[in-house]
Amino acid sequence: MAGYGFMGAAHSQAWRVANAFFDLPRRPVMAAVAGRNAAAVAAAADKWGWGESVTDWRELIERDDIDLIDICTPGDSHVDIAIAALQAGKHVLCEKPLANSVAEAERMASAARAAAKRGVFAMVGFSYRRVPAIGLARRLVEQGRLGEIRQIRSVYLQDWLADAASPMTWRLDKSLAGSGALGDTGAHAIDLAQHLSGLDITAVSGIMRTFVTERPKLAERKGLTGIASDEIGTVTVDDAALFSAKFGDGPLGSFETTRMATGRRNSLRIELSGTDGALAFDFEDMNVLQFYDATAPADTQGFQRILATEPTHPWVGSWWPPGHGLGYEHAFTHQVVDLLTDIDAGRQPRPSFDEGLRVQRVLDAIERSSNTGSAWTPVE
Amino acid sequence: MAGYGFMGAAHSQAWRVANAFFDLPRRPVMAAVAGRNAAAVAAAADKWGWGESVTDWRELIERDDIDLIDICTPGDSHVDIAIAALQAGKHVLCEKPLANSVAEAERMASAARAAAKRGVFAMVGFSYRRVPAIGLARRLVEQGRLGEIRQIRSVYLQDWLADAASPMTWRLDKSLAGSGALGDTGAHAIDLAQHLSGLDITAVSGIMRTFVTERPKLAERKGLTGIASDEIGTVTVDDAALFSAKFGDGPLGSFETTRMATGRRNSLRIELSGTDGALAFDFEDMNVLQFYDATAPADTQGFQRILATEPTHPWVGSWWPPGHGLGYEHAFTHQVVDLLTDIDAGRQPRPSFDEGLRVQRVLDAIERSSNTGSAWTPVE
Amino acid sequence: MAGYGFMGAAHSQAWRVANAFFDLPRRPVMAAVAGRNAAAVAAAADKWGWGESVTDWRELIERDDIDLIDICTPGDSHVDIAIAALQAGKHVLCEKPLANSVAEAERMASAARAAAKRGVFAMVGFSYRRVPAIGLARRLVEQGRLGEIRQIRSVYLQDWLADAASPMTWRLDKSLAGSGALGDTGAHAIDLAQHLSGLDITAVSGIMRTFVTERPKLAERKGLTGIASDEIGTVTVDDAALFSAKFGDGPLGSFETTRMATGRRNSLRIELSGTDGALAFDFEDMNVLQFYDATAPADTQGFQRILATEPTHPWVGSWWPPGHGLGYEHAFTHQVVDLLTDIDAGRQPRPSFDEGLRVQRVLDAIERSSNTGSAWTPVE
Amino acid sequence: MAGYGFMGAAHSQAWRVANAFFDLPRRPVMAAVAGRNAAAVAAAADKWGWGESVTDWRELIERDDIDLIDICTPGDSHVDIAIAALQAGKHVLCEKPLANSVAEAERMASAARAAAKRGVFAMVGFSYRRVPAIGLARRLVEQGRLGEIRQIRSVYLQDWLADAASPMTWRLDKSLAGSGALGDTGAHAIDLAQHLSGLDITAVSGIMRTFVTERPKLAERKGLTGIASDEIGTVTVDDAALFSAKFGDGPLGSFETTRMATGRRNSLRIELSGTDGALAFDFEDMNVLQFYDATAPADTQGFQRILATEPTHPWVGSWWPPGHGLGYEHAFTHQVVDLLTDIDAGRQPRPSFDEGLRVQRVLDAIERSSNTGSAWTPVE
Repeated sequence: MAGYGFMGAAHSQAWRVANAFFDLPRRPVMAAVAGRNAAAVAAAADKWGWGESVTDWRELIERDDIDLIDICTPGDSHVDIAIAALQAGKHVLCEKPLANSVAEAERMASAARAAAKRGVFAMVGFSYRRVPAIGLARRLVEQGRLGEIRQIRSVYLQDWLADAASPMTWRLDKSLAGSGALGDTGAHAIDLAQHLSGLDITAVSGIMRTFVTERPKLAERKGLTGIASDEIGTVTVDDAALFSAKFGDGPLGSFETTRMATGRRNSLRIELSGTDGALAFDFEDMNVLQFYDATAPADTQGFQRILATEPTHPWVGSWWPPGHGLGYEHAFTHQVVDLLTDIDAGRQPRPSFDEGLRVQRVLDAIERSSNTGSAWTPVE
Repeated sequence: MAGYGFMGAAHSQAWRVANAFFDLPRRPVMAAVAGRNAAAVAAAADKWGWGESVTDWRELIERDDIDLIDICTPGDSHVDIAIAALQAGKHVLCEKPLANSVAEAERMASAARAAAKRGVFAMVGFSYRRVPAIGLARRLVEQGRLGEIRQIRSVYLQDWLADAASPMTWRLDKSLAGSGALGDTGAHAIDLAQHLSGLDITAVSGIMRTFVTERPKLAERKGLTGIASDEIGTVTVDDAALFSAKFGDGPLGSFETTRMATGRRNSLRIELSGTDGALAFDFEDMNVLQFYDATAPADTQGFQRILATEPTHPWVGSWWPPGHGLGYEHAFTHQVVDLLTDIDAGRQPRPSFDEGLRVQRVLDAIERSSNTGSAWTPVE
Repeated sequence: MAGYGFMGAAHSQAWRVANAFFDLPRRPVMAAVAGRNAAAVAAAADKWGWGESVTDWRELIERDDIDLIDICTPGDSHVDIAIAALQAGKHVLCEKPLANSVAEAERMASAARAAAKRGVFAMVGFSYRRVPAIGLARRLVEQGRLGEIRQIRSVYLQDWLADAASPMTWRLDKSLAGSGALGDTGAHAIDLAQHLSGLDITAVSGIMRTFVTERPKLAERKGLTGIASDEIGTVTVDDAALFSAKFGDGPLGSFETTRMATGRRNSLRIELSGTDGALAFDFEDMNVLQFYDATAPADTQGFQRILATEPTHPWVGSWWPPGHGLGYEHAFTHQVVDLLTDIDAGRQPRPSFDEGLRVQRVLDAIERSSNTGSAWTPVE
Repeated sequence: MAGYGFMGAAHSQAWRVANAFFDLPRRPVMAAVAGRNAAAVAAAADKWGWGESVTDWRELIERDDIDLIDICTPGDSHVDIAIAALQAGKHVLCEKPLANSVAEAERMASAARAAAKRGVFAMVGFSYRRVPAIGLARRLVEQGRLGEIRQIRSVYLQDWLADAASPMTWRLDKSLAGSGALGDTGAHAIDLAQHLSGLDITAVSGIMRTFVTERPKLAERKGLTGIASDEIGTVTVDDAALFSAKFGDGPLGSFETTRMATGRRNSLRIELSGTDGALAFDFEDMNVLQFYDATAPADTQGFQRILATEPTHPWVGSWWPPGHGLGYEHAFTHQVVDLLTDIDAGRQPRPSFDEGLRVQRVLDAIERSSNTGSAWTPVE
């Protein structure tokens, strides 16, 4: 694994527990973790149960006993690590967004396509796809329970930057993060909308906004944010982005992603309205899927609060009895389970780097649209 | 109409607006209102649109142009007014609880049965039966959507007495009100449970409690409460009552009624659990009925939030388009509509005085159980 | 009153009950209602308690005993009736949207300004301003509880056109209605956003969409929709509109209005995110206001579910005790109460025709933006 | 660890991950798991990462390299294992309820008190105490935010036995499980009420009911239930229990625990109403605590939905950023963390066996009350 921030903790937990609950084709061995700060990465390795720590990710790639590289670093290093790993014949799990630019993402997707021909696979970590309520939602769409989807609305609301005194982090630096709310949380919303609908966004009209342009620099990192120093830094990414989207001749989409939604901690919501039904989800209530069946008798129509904790629901049967909810990190475990299963089956894991590239192109189109007065901008 | 307190306002509104939305067999004329304080009742008559005001309810009964007496006075006067009215050949709508004792209620029910033979009808005002969501719930039970009902749980939570400095009102005086939370809000819960299930409570085990035994006397009434004076009065009724109930060989019921549920303003909740489904309702969200269909496919089972504002739902077709909710007083309008329709059809309106008596017997059994260490006490 | 559709029923109810609950400077007399179909309007007058019915609104304006004209007709006739009434010295309450075009609205606003100098006042019926939860929200904003508002998000979701077989009505005919979801429900969202924030929308980028372009013509009207005939008609208005909005240098707004949101009957939601707090409202739960206080201690921060039924909340003190919710039509009653109070005080009632014109200009800018590839379009 | 059912999985997960997120005084080593079926327990050991498996729990006790015994077996074997372990100088974590009878629990508590003097500690696994929202609730009560608590209401609603065709398991056999819903889920509700209020239940009046007295025997276990065989078995425990409780001179409690609440999977709810505030919790929404502050200004009073995912909330700082919810098993991890920390500090972990005994006495009193017509029965 490369990287040992918040995402590193989530991924490590996935590798640690997957085998205890799921039948895996092969049991993962947590070989080594790479990071630039030797002491810090050694501490992380020790804490999280990695066999070893190294200070250069290249060491991981050179090792014969490592079959898979899990990339949890900031976006600017994804391209180099992923391509090197794939070329060295190692499977790759790469955190989203795939890269910091379309050009990088294209190179990565190209490398992934080449590797796949050799049975070496790459997956991008849009983990929310594997929340059971979302898995169930996808199943209902595939079963045609929504009919033809007409509208998709999604907001991803966070508020960790609502306080103007909250300090800079690498996530606010365009050179490291690529973009702000758009690439971080907006990427999730885009992937989810495309995944759930089974349709691609083909054009966008958007606007990005930075509400707080200067913030104290970071003295010490804690969680997503940290302790402020006395120096002032410049925010070079968006705090919020709004965009409309066309899915070809199909649905019309409405999206908002923001880090300034006071009082909303991590509210990724998505609603799909179709001719025969509708679905609604909110990550702040992640074990619940709301489903509306427009074909039901009029008297008892209404959104159904499905507690997605039934043994028949995706991934749930391996965990607890009904009504015993899962948490944030379980989606990462499901991701690892599916990845290992697909690799074993010689099957391309989803979302592929091509899907990651697709999201990257949408992000890029939104940015270009925002730069040209929100003009409708085709994706690609 | 006799009485002009908070209930008088609600009943007046019902008489005022029923004809504008519903097709009534006869249009109500708001002839006269009676009350002991001449100036106050005259002001109420003027404000609410009654043709006249009088200071003795007997005057209403003597008038030939009055066909129906609506009783909104405190419970201690129900028996005299109702019996006099029925004997004078006037239909009666009487606020709940029917009376302050079983003995009174029996006399009233007897008078009502006698009058009904002459085509003169009496109804007791358990208005919550006519909230559309409750009407729909009853319909679903009648359709067998719940299968066999096994458990009923109901809480009626208010908090207007949570503040120990809140003053006395007639509702805290046993000689006027009969009982406290039990007879006031508990009576609603009992009626609703029996109405929705279609079953009678046959035995109870209960406990009543007064948390605040002394309160300032009332200087001036405002709404349910008012402004405190310097004198201290003694609370002679219960602040809260808990009871379990048997419905013959059928369901087991759990009930709580309280005026001390801090933060709950008027939360009458009821849930019925059956072999094939369940229903849940909360008056603080009165336009919603929650329905669970246990016979639905496992994947999409969940409580359905039915917005009871569809034209097919009881009474709703006469009001607004779907999604435009009704308020508290609409149930009183529906009560008047059904009462007039039944009278015109020569049909006993529901709930009858016998049904009111039934509730009274349950209240009495709870009080006796509470006085004998919560021993199971048969109703009657 | 001119017009006797669904809005006519709501307005009639307001005139009927306002005096019974509120202290009005003058008691309204429901003199006459005008409509083109003599039989139908006579029936409406009889049902709703109007003294008389006429077939030409001009008759209302000629009468000396009529002081106020309430306009509930489709949007195409607003301009003529309102201007004639104001010129005749009659106060005017006009349903929203003010008119079907900016040009019409300008003439109306100009007439209203002239009349106001003579003590004759005009008001536009954005009734949602007078839902108590909204009144409370406005109060909290005015008190500065949100700090500086950064983002406003509003969706107005309905689904009465989700069924492609649902027939045409005048609301789907551009010549009568001006626009579709945009002018009907979008106008409410715009007014509410401007009213709550106290800020004007200055530029918009939007897109309008008609999902179902042909529908059966209407055979018979029932509620918002009705019974379909065999003929096919063409929908000439939008089913849905999405738009982003700038409030000068202030907040960024995100809006959606649609009649195709399967399962959402009348869900007008608005959320304001500020530096110190946030507010959220959903009309499907209209007695509730969600408030988040970002200045509260970290441990107990969270959205507060305020049941807007307290005596201290706007308009509520005149109705029922806490926890006894109000319904859709109560806002119309509050509108009438405030209108009569302002007229009596010689004070311009709000929202004025100028405010209605402001909304009209926003609607017009959205339509122009939609016609020019969602380019940012200044309002005016 | 002894036992390898559903609880074994949850406990194993706790031992597996505690060190990765928390700073522990000593790192747990998962030495061995005991179970009667050699093949099954070997598979469990392998799957869950235990070093070894044995078929007799006595082997665990005899080993010098084992410092702590974790008891996850059915209730009938708790007494022997716990006492043997404590006498052998091993710390004990024992699943709830402590035992199948008061007599057994007394022996265990006595052994625990003796062991504690030697620095050997015992803890009973009421895991819900360590859900962060519950930890926060306890903190608010301790801070006096509720004032004097007057009423406690708790329901624990499950529906896994609502289907009369659902088969027998050891949980329905009184000789193995002690009691049914009462001892299983009711025990949690009792512990939680006492823990949150800081008060002991001193008397109860209750009724137990078995709705379905015969069920197919179990052919194969799956989760809480399993596959039915052709034979019929007799249910010897309660499906539901209702009880009222007195907390000395303090609050009045109302409790229901049931496995027949159609549509409710695992809804442990508790609400505390005090003079100054109230708290409400529902395990089906386990990351949320509802708090009502009655001392707040009237205009903005309302239940606050606190997302208990803040770094300042108990145990949360070691996990994810705000808004990233935890799941069912996290409480078990917190249990292990606190247990190890307390052992290291030479401090009695909570809940102690004495606290477990206290719950056992309440369960026993309820059963005796149910057998004597719901008469009020003192605890002990």
